[in-house]
Amino acid sequence: MEGMESCTCIAPVNIAVIKYWGKRDEQLILPVNSSISLQAKTTVAVSSRFKEDRIWLNGKEESVHNKRIQNVLAEIRRRATRHHVEGADGDIRQPCVHICSENNFPTAAGLASSAAGYACLVYTLAQLYGVSGELSGIARQGSGSACRSMYGGFVLWEMGQSTDGIDSLARQLAPANHWPSLRILTLVVSDQKKQVGSTEGMQTTVATSELMKKRVEVVPQHTEDMIKAIQQRDFPTFARITMQESNQFHAVCLDTYPPVFYLTDTSRLIIQMVHTYNTFHNHTRVAYTFDAGPNACLYLLEEDVPYIVALVNQFFPPPPNTQQAFVRGINVAPASLDKDLLECFKIPRSEGEIKYIIHTKVGSGPQLIEAEHSLLNSDGLPK
Amino acid sequence: MEGMESCTCIAPVNIAVIKYWGKRDEQLILPVNSSISLQAKTTVAVSSRFKEDRIWLNGKEESVHNKRIQNVLAEIRRRATRHHVEGADGDIRQPCVHICSENNFPTAAGLASSAAGYACLVYTLAQLYGVSGELSGIARQGSGSACRSMYGGFVLWEMGQSTDGIDSLARQLAPANHWPSLRILTLVVSDQKKQVGSTEGMQTTVATSELMKKRVEVVPQHTEDMIKAIQQRDFPTFARITMQESNQFHAVCLDTYPPVFYLTDTSRLIIQMVHTYNTFHNHTRVAYTFDAGPNACLYLLEEDVPYIVALVNQFFPPPPNTQQAFVRGINVAPASLDKDLLECFKIPRSEGEIKYIIHTKVGSGPQLIEAEHSLLNSDGLPK
Repeated sequence: MEGMESCTCIAPVNIAVIKYWGKRDEQLILPVNSSISLQAKTTVAVSSRFKEDRIWLNGKEESVHNKRIQNVLAEIRRRATRHHVEGADGDIRQPCVHICSENNFPTAAGLASSAAGYACLVYTLAQLYGVSGELSGIARQGSGSACRSMYGGFVLWEMGQSTDGIDSLARQLAPANHWPSLRILTLVVSDQKKQVGSTEGMQTTVATSELMKKRVEVVPQHTEDMIKAIQQRDFPTFARITMQESNQFHAVCLDTYPPVFYLTDTSRLIIQMVHTYNTFHNHTRVAYTFDAGPNACLYLLEEDVPYIVALVNQFFPPPPNTQQAFVRGINVAPASLDKDLLECFKIPRSEGEIKYIIHTKVGSGPQLIEAEHSLLNSDGLPK
Repeated sequence: MEGMESCTCIAPVNIAVIKYWGKRDEQLILPVNSSISLQAKTTVAVSSRFKEDRIWLNGKEESVHNKRIQNVLAEIRRRATRHHVEGADGDIRQPCVHICSENNFPTAAGLASSAAGYACLVYTLAQLYGVSGELSGIARQGSGSACRSMYGGFVLWEMGQSTDGIDSLARQLAPANHWPSLRILTLVVSDQKKQVGSTEGMQTTVATSELMKKRVEVVPQHTEDMIKAIQQRDFPTFARITMQESNQFHAVCLDTYPPVFYLTDTSRLIIQMVHTYNTFHNHTRVAYTFDAGPNACLYLLEEDVPYIVALVNQFFPPPPNTQQAFVRGINVAPASLDKDLLECFKIPRSEGEIKYIIHTKVGSGPQLIEAEHSLLNSDGLPK
């Protein structure tokens, strides 16, 4: 289409190590996961010939009249430095957009999928409309934790004080290469259905959980300790806080009325596996964290990856004749496991409970990719 | 055996509706469950011919040199008004005992089994040794919550202020017949293995859970509200507090480091079933509570029993060709379920996950039973 311009970007899924759950005055940090395996990809095209804004998500057209999408579009257009057109009434406005977004991870299963999606959307729109400067505040209006995905490496989301949220922004604590030996194993659990969406869950927790009041008091200290542990690359402290944060987050979900559950029997076995491994070594070498879904994110150092991959293979093997690779991302050769170690584990073998493992490092933020990867054709419609 | 005297008693299992978990200053109430199906039975025999104190638990001889058993025996003997013998040194002492105890419920599976066992032991010893007056303080030294089983009906365990525990006693709030329509359905879950014993779990929670500090602050209000709800037979309030207490207790277990889990996927489905039933009726008609194990105790009024039994049959049916009765205790004819109601439940059918249901009322405390039920033969040995 003549006069059409488009941009395609990718943004990583990120996992919080200090959990965000519905309170304005919390602070959040997390490493960002830039795996090729777990990301959102978005193409935005702009053309004066488009009659209306349109959006396709994972191949299906959706309504663009969604408050969050509208907020993001309005804010980008307000700050646009390109693609201005003068309307019949003399007003300056922007032409319509076609948005096409895909992600290659299960949606609504607690892997921060909407966060990566909104981060990618905001970043792509900003490229196209020439919006520079602080973008995390715009991403936040799409999905709270999307603001974290606007940066790579280790990111702090400062919730801010202002009631209009203007100071609720993300900032990078350390770049991705700050802690080169840190690895992330995402264990994608088979049963992906999420019971309660995180927006609804958060509201109910704030309204009904007595323990949440305590959590709000203690989170700032966790954040401070976590920042220090990251700065000093103190893995045992980083790992302990990560696990305690995950557990406390799920505890307040359970203290919600009616209770909200995200952990399953499989999550529990993964937790048990991690603690057994750490106890065997008398040292905290692996940490787990779970967002609002059953998938586990394990943080560990490079040297432990072959052992943990071998243990997952041992206790959660894929069904026989599985065609797809069980371990994806960075290549890893599973270690052979000592009998001494194996005998410590009192967990049953649960075949097929983990669908696959993704092995990644702490990575970068959103990136512009080449036009050949565009999700829209030259008419501005999904390929 | 000449000169042998014995006593046999039964004591009910009880389930707390305000949970006890490791803090001295909490207060506890609960209805006592006097089901014939869920109880401890103890015979104690005393004879000057016995050479040593001996104990058999569920058919197996155990060491009597257990601190808790020793404390209970010492305190009973100190207060004994019968069976005194003068020793060679002129001291007054009591002859040796043979103790035989059985319970017909899974031990160490969070059904307060040790509480019922100790309550039964203390009550039986007191009968035999002529100890009258307050006994709950002695039972408490065996197992914390055993003190509650010394009374029938609705019991409050006042934790007291004194460091020696002398004022930490149970008292009856209301007799068993105070709320005649109240029913209890115990859903005995198939997988009975308990990961962490409650004594160890409590200690770890107190040492590591930040949320526990909040729980200690809020429990007195829960207790006050619960007492009022029981006095006024206000089922919706009684039920809501019961569920919130259960959830909060399991939340602090999860906030423990390493975390302690007692709820399983099956427990979660039971919780979901109860909330769906209540939502359908737009009224809180059933409550669940879980102790330190996966078994569920449901509290409800008589009129809802046929529906809940039918729902359990629907979603957690016994495997085909099960020989034993699925519903035990008070007789009940399952209701036929309306399609409207059934359609609300988004839970999978999980065959065999619930082993059986026990249907009981709030009942009485420990009772002396006839000599023909003795667990010991005339030689003072297990029958």
